[in-house]
Amino acid sequence: MTLEYLSQNRAFDGDQFVLSHHSDATGTEMTFSVYVPPHLPGVKLPVLWYLSGLTCTHANVTEKGEYRRACAEHGIVFVAPDTSPRGEDVPDAPDEYDFGKGAGFYVDATQDPWSRHYRMRSYLEIELPQVVASEFPVDLSRQAITGHSMGGHGALTIGLRDPARFRSISAFSPIVSPSRVPWGEKALSRYLGDDRDAWRAYDAVALIEDGARHDHILVDQGTADQFLEEQLKTGALSLACAKAGMSPEIRMQEGYDHSYYFISSFMADHIAWHAARLG
Amino acid sequence: MTLEYLSQNRAFDGDQFVLSHHSDATGTEMTFSVYVPPHLPGVKLPVLWYLSGLTCTHANVTEKGEYRRACAEHGIVFVAPDTSPRGEDVPDAPDEYDFGKGAGFYVDATQDPWSRHYRMRSYLEIELPQVVASEFPVDLSRQAITGHSMGGHGALTIGLRDPARFRSISAFSPIVSPSRVPWGEKALSRYLGDDRDAWRAYDAVALIEDGARHDHILVDQGTADQFLEEQLKTGALSLACAKAGMSPEIRMQEGYDHSYYFISSFMADHIAWHAARLG
Repeated sequence: MTLEYLSQNRAFDGDQFVLSHHSDATGTEMTFSVYVPPHLPGVKLPVLWYLSGLTCTHANVTEKGEYRRACAEHGIVFVAPDTSPRGEDVPDAPDEYDFGKGAGFYVDATQDPWSRHYRMRSYLEIELPQVVASEFPVDLSRQAITGHSMGGHGALTIGLRDPARFRSISAFSPIVSPSRVPWGEKALSRYLGDDRDAWRAYDAVALIEDGARHDHILVDQGTADQFLEEQLKTGALSLACAKAGMSPEIRMQEGYDHSYYFISSFMADHIAWHAARLG
Repeated sequence: MTLEYLSQNRAFDGDQFVLSHHSDATGTEMTFSVYVPPHLPGVKLPVLWYLSGLTCTHANVTEKGEYRRACAEHGIVFVAPDTSPRGEDVPDAPDEYDFGKGAGFYVDATQDPWSRHYRMRSYLEIELPQVVASEFPVDLSRQAITGHSMGGHGALTIGLRDPARFRSISAFSPIVSPSRVPWGEKALSRYLGDDRDAWRAYDAVALIEDGARHDHILVDQGTADQFLEEQLKTGALSLACAKAGMSPEIRMQEGYDHSYYFISSFMADHIAWHAARLG
């Protein structure tokens, strides 16, 4: 496995890297960013995974997420993967911003022609952690995960499926139940087929209904978010958690929208909250 | 004067605005951004002007500058203007990133065809402060100025020419003496003509040689900045200040480059430093 360093920039006395590598999971070149905070030689650091939303790459949060100060303060490595496989031979739906490239929905697709490359679940659950740990000083016994919108969906589902891996899960304006909203129904039906039972592993609310549990969940959701009512449905997560006896912190943030102006406003809060759980 | 609101986003409990208006100074439509931190009704706030570098618009610092948290904490309005006039009828040098649109160098041009629209000095010294004060709760008796690269040049020269207006001046990797570096010689000769005496009002080192003084100057410069030796020449500012008996804070930051990763790392420091002087 060869990692190519695309850029390295000093920031907050640490280093912001952008790298690419050939992924066995997706069969494509994959790009991701890693921020390594200042640290003593030989120390291994906890890692926070950040999954991005529709249309994004690693670059959006890397440029606009305002996470480096808090990661430097708390000594946390921050990894931002891409949102789908990329490349000329990867099938796409170029006229659709919410499907295909930039919209991998963090699934392992089972339907043609998507199943060959759209394997973001395997990429994030199996391959990328090993790639990152082989190159950077991370302690894989201390992981946390967060994300925005489609990436909030990714963080919640990946985290709920493997609570032993992730000490804490947070999300900014997540799609909490893709099975019951237009973005999700479109993506899951085409990536996974019409059998809705196969969707449940990719739906945070369904996972909780089916018995998944986590004691450390934080969600921030803006009240002025244009997607709240139709696509995000934060209330469905609150309800499922209440029925399951879980007590997540779900905070409605007055006047905030769906943008990185919202994410950056609360990023340091999330990092401090994860840091308290990562030890 | 009609201000058009292009966007408004809640951020750090304040509001990030992007606006445009017709400028009498440049004879064009001009776009700028304003962050207004949370504040009590009726209160007027100090204002920090941020001037951007070559190729930039208001958007670069607005998205990547990481200034909002510190502005919210200290109660400072942050204004980011564009770097030149824009529009189809504005003369340009489209193959040159360092001249024409995106490279106004904060001068009032005197040479054809630039003199009609390239009047960023008048825009920033006379027009924009009135535009901002007419719309937002700013106290024009408490102003400070900062900027990056070409914008650091702008901040230093505008600040040194009018120390009564600006309580403090700071800069990130500024061009400290455009008269003696390739970027500056190219721009000043074409905007202002070949008489180098006319350039001195647009050269921080020359202004100090000619008697300009300011007691509150802060400069951060990365040691890994690719432009340091040929274009920025921080040492020339140190020397001119020493000869003039001025004691600016000029800090060489180890390993940092010319990018927004550098700027964002020290932005909160600059805002806190200005805040201490703005009262």
